Amino acid sequence: MEYFGGKYDVIVIGAGHAGIEAALASARLGVKTAVFTINLDWVGNMPCNPSIGGTSKGHLVREIDALGGEMGKAADKYSLQSRMLNLGKGPAVHSLRAQIDRREYSAGMKHTLELTDNLDIRQGEIVDLYKDGDEWVVKTRLEALFRAKAVVIATGTFLGGRVYIGDVTYESGPDGMFPANELSKALCKLNIPLRRFKTGTPSRVNRRSIDFDGLDVQEGDEVTVPFSFETDKRPENKVVCHITYSNEKTKQIILDNLDRSPMYSGKIEGKGPRYCPSFEDKIVRFADKERHQLFIEPCGENTEEMYLQGLSSSLPEDVQLAFIHTIKGLEHAQVMRAAYAIEYDCVDPTALKATLEFLDIPGLYGAGQFNGSSGYEEAAAQGLVAGINAALKIKGEEPLILDRGGSYIGTLIDDLVTKGCSDPYRMMTSRSEYRLVLRQDNADIRLTPTGHKIGLISDERFAKFCKKQELIKEEFNRVKNLSVPMTDEVQQILTSKGTAPLKTGCKMIELLRRPQITYDDLKTIDVDRPELPLEVFEQVEISIKYEGYIKKQEAQIKEMRRIEAKQIPADIDYSTLKGLRLEAIEKLSKIRPQNLGQASRISGVNPADITALNIILESMHND
Amino acid sequence: MEYFGGKYDVIVIGAGHAGIEAALASARLGVKTAVFTINLDWVGNMPCNPSIGGTSKGHLVREIDALGGEMGKAADKYSLQSRMLNLGKGPAVHSLRAQIDRREYSAGMKHTLELTDNLDIRQGEIVDLYKDGDEWVVKTRLEALFRAKAVVIATGTFLGGRVYIGDVTYESGPDGMFPANELSKALCKLNIPLRRFKTGTPSRVNRRSIDFDGLDVQEGDEVTVPFSFETDKRPENKVVCHITYSNEKTKQIILDNLDRSPMYSGKIEGKGPRYCPSFEDKIVRFADKERHQLFIEPCGENTEEMYLQGLSSSLPEDVQLAFIHTIKGLEHAQVMRAAYAIEYDCVDPTALKATLEFLDIPGLYGAGQFNGSSGYEEAAAQGLVAGINAALKIKGEEPLILDRGGSYIGTLIDDLVTKGCSDPYRMMTSRSEYRLVLRQDNADIRLTPTGHKIGLISDERFAKFCKKQELIKEEFNRVKNLSVPMTDEVQQILTSKGTAPLKTGCKMIELLRRPQITYDDLKTIDVDRPELPLEVFEQVEISIKYEGYIKKQEAQIKEMRRIEAKQIPADIDYSTLKGLRLEAIEKLSKIRPQNLGQASRISGVNPADITALNIILESMHND
Repeated sequence: MEYFGGKYDVIVIGAGHAGIEAALASARLGVKTAVFTINLDWVGNMPCNPSIGGTSKGHLVREIDALGGEMGKAADKYSLQSRMLNLGKGPAVHSLRAQIDRREYSAGMKHTLELTDNLDIRQGEIVDLYKDGDEWVVKTRLEALFRAKAVVIATGTFLGGRVYIGDVTYESGPDGMFPANELSKALCKLNIPLRRFKTGTPSRVNRRSIDFDGLDVQEGDEVTVPFSFETDKRPENKVVCHITYSNEKTKQIILDNLDRSPMYSGKIEGKGPRYCPSFEDKIVRFADKERHQLFIEPCGENTEEMYLQGLSSSLPEDVQLAFIHTIKGLEHAQVMRAAYAIEYDCVDPTALKATLEFLDIPGLYGAGQFNGSSGYEEAAAQGLVAGINAALKIKGEEPLILDRGGSYIGTLIDDLVTKGCSDPYRMMTSRSEYRLVLRQDNADIRLTPTGHKIGLISDERFAKFCKKQELIKEEFNRVKNLSVPMTDEVQQILTSKGTAPLKTGCKMIELLRRPQITYDDLKTIDVDRPELPLEVFEQVEISIKYEGYIKKQEAQIKEMRRIEAKQIPADIDYSTLKGLRLEAIEKLSKIRPQNLGQASRISGVNPADITALNIILESMHND
Repeated sequence: MEYFGGKYDVIVIGAGHAGIEAALASARLGVKTAVFTINLDWVGNMPCNPSIGGTSKGHLVREIDALGGEMGKAADKYSLQSRMLNLGKGPAVHSLRAQIDRREYSAGMKHTLELTDNLDIRQGEIVDLYKDGDEWVVKTRLEALFRAKAVVIATGTFLGGRVYIGDVTYESGPDGMFPANELSKALCKLNIPLRRFKTGTPSRVNRRSIDFDGLDVQEGDEVTVPFSFETDKRPENKVVCHITYSNEKTKQIILDNLDRSPMYSGKIEGKGPRYCPSFEDKIVRFADKERHQLFIEPCGENTEEMYLQGLSSSLPEDVQLAFIHTIKGLEHAQVMRAAYAIEYDCVDPTALKATLEFLDIPGLYGAGQFNGSSGYEEAAAQGLVAGINAALKIKGEEPLILDRGGSYIGTLIDDLVTKGCSDPYRMMTSRSEYRLVLRQDNADIRLTPTGHKIGLISDERFAKFCKKQELIKEEFNRVKNLSVPMTDEVQQILTSKGTAPLKTGCKMIELLRRPQITYDDLKTIDVDRPELPLEVFEQVEISIKYEGYIKKQEAQIKEMRRIEAKQIPADIDYSTLKGLRLEAIEKLSKIRPQNLGQASRISGVNPADITALNIILESMHND
């Protein structure tokens, strides 16, 4: 018997990485929020690898943090090992990655939700969702009807979830949770374009059955860096990971059994993530590769369960065991859980606006894997934006739209809603044309003011942030004006670093511009250097060293934003416009870009179409 | 496609409280063991209240510990609050009870399993079970076939699990886990008599929504006592519980909605636990009671989730909310998870022997809720015995049969296999006729030698145990021989305690026999009292104070064991025996008692039948 359960401003469906950020952002912005989860015990679960961050994903986490999200703080708190990746390359691609205690992270996130004002956390499967007048109604499996002004769908891999392991297939959410089988029907009634994607997870083995002799050890960084700009303590390295490799035998077993893969036999219709392929995908797509690198990662401090990163598979269990046992160190591995593929319902994200609200369905938002992305960090980033926008809408405030020039989050969302995706979308640094500006080290500079303006960054944190900005400016000015005399010591440093000696005295800033010279190298000749946080020196050094490139990208961003500023009326009828090609009319009518910039990035819309559209917009403006 | 997964000596199905003890005992006794669980993340879950111990259940935990089981150690490690119940009554009913951190306990138990030699822990639903020659075969959902010499079934509420909440019902294990739907069919093929039992769990609420003002606080004991005789540290009290009461309004809501209860409307066919009834059961069965006491218990240190002990229900969610909100302190309680009833398949335990092996199916054992019991402690106790016996059988050693005179575990198992149960069996002190001897304080004395003989108690622990026994003996002899002079101080102590002054000098033991005088009272006049552990004084004091009663019960136990020793041949054909009534023949043929004692406790077998049987047995013995 249906009954009225309660009324909220915002209801969030799902408490994974997207749902958590959506719920927290909404509640913290002061609107009454409820978050529903199928199982309270696995809020913020990491059904796939027990880590957060990584190339470009580390950027996302720091951006989430700068906007006032939770993921970075939790990752710091439950970090087992922390590494800054790609230190051999330029600062644009430096990315933080941490191994996380899966179980503790989940417990901690649940507790954070429980402790948040304006937020109710409820166990319940949502089986229906519909509009009643101005309000949304969600119905739980236990027949409670909740009403809300806005709803965020963050169903991850639970929506219509189905697991595949060889011939065996069954309805299931991730990690043995119940799937959400009913909600898809309600979404179809709302004309939401659903499709099937799939993802996978490797098997887990008992540490005691692994022979670590001769495997490479991967240690954490000596000096670790937290994700969150608010974490004071450097995360401790509590575990090591190990590296091993597949071999010809492994490959042969995969090839011999491809016909037993539900993906290759066509049983799975969902598209898997191109950039996070299953092991059998890797074997097939990189047929000439003799071996693949694999990581053996601990799942927690208080467990012997180890995750085999790189061995995701949907092959039958016997084949999984056979190929695992060919791998050095894993010859006698005791598999505790088998690898599996999971197929789920998600939306074509071009149905969404850059606010993550549906184009045609006011008050309904999508976030995370439901929007066609893959990855915890991508999910959290979208959850944060959807939650913020749902709350801002209710408060009658301007929405938050992050653009490609300001953040990876903006890039991610713009890619999704403008270009769509044909397989689970994964963030990569190469997806950003402004990556020298969108660095992980300056995420706070780029986004803290926005987070503060919205109301998710406290005045206290903002004051600290401003103080840091001042220190950076002061230090920049100091080295800009500091004269370096042509002493023997200076010359010796320069020649020892393989760069030309001075011909005349110069400013410190000029030495720092040289690629061979680091801030640290000049310590001995910089006797009055103030005691400052490492992060301050880092900002000054990067801004000096890459000044030319950064200025160039900043100019590009400015130009992009000029175009981006050219708004397209929501009710424009492309079919009546002259000068547009048919394909462009079709695509523009479907995606309905909010501005010229977005229009220009739609595939199938070419520069000539944009020129025509620009002229039309200007003439409309002149009318 | 089926494939061969591996071979073990013992396979345990289920990793709840029964399965854990069975698996650990078997592996620790040196036989190769595997334990299968549907979900590795909730090994040793407490789907119902987050506590271990309680009246008579505390006895079970200490007995499990004395035999070398794990529950007591884990309970100590993850204890949140510890109380010795019934201290106002005699030592026979003193029982330890602790609030437990549910999530940490589960993680810790999983880790213990992972770290145990000879033990593989595997995620997998068992979908088939059959005999192939001398071996058992179990099949997993992923089509792996494992072979074993013995199998322990410890499926708890997972087997054919179905949840009921008002009109809503669905297949499910406890706490949102998948049920085990296939295995029952295999058991039916083995002619195992299955039936439906049910149990329930209350809703969980957010601590922040409770108004604690004016509620009674229940603190932990000032001096706590661990469950395990091996735990050195006294458990810390980290939380408090609260007490509240239902009222007339609560009652009225229940009565008004009884027709919506799946139990009263007949939807649930399974029998619920008589001594752990749902709240609506209590309202109906104790119709004249104005109020019922309820406890608000924390589920963990790192969560705001609170358990409402006493409010188990299968009424619809709206009714649950309505009655919860009538209760003082819970007026605005935010329910995080609804209460539910769960119905499951279990066995008629009269199909089992006292070893917990099936009478007719060699090598197959049952343990825990599968055997028709209720409670974590009852489950663990049986798991331990089943695991020990499976391993002993494989090692070709004599089975472990615990009798009613030596332990509550023996009483529990004897009750189950001899009398059977028509609802989930719960341990109670009143079920033991020897409860003055079977105390929780002397569980180590009663059972450590057995645990050591079997091989689950280390030599080191056994040496410590023997040392304690010596200390007890020495101290007993000391007070037995210690003269107390008739000084003013002595007389003053005696009169101040309300007992007669001495007429002449006496031995210390005589003073300790007086009910009014405690060991502690005599401290000042016992100047040479040695420094001994509290537990030693306790044993001496109890043995002195209750000497008469204890001796009497010990004599009864001796007599019981004399009868118990009269073995009944396994192949006896009761239908051919003279002097037995028809009902007795039927019952004896079904239960097939192993000895005269067990026969005497079968309901429907009366003393005259036993006399007749005794004569027959003696004549057989004389043949």
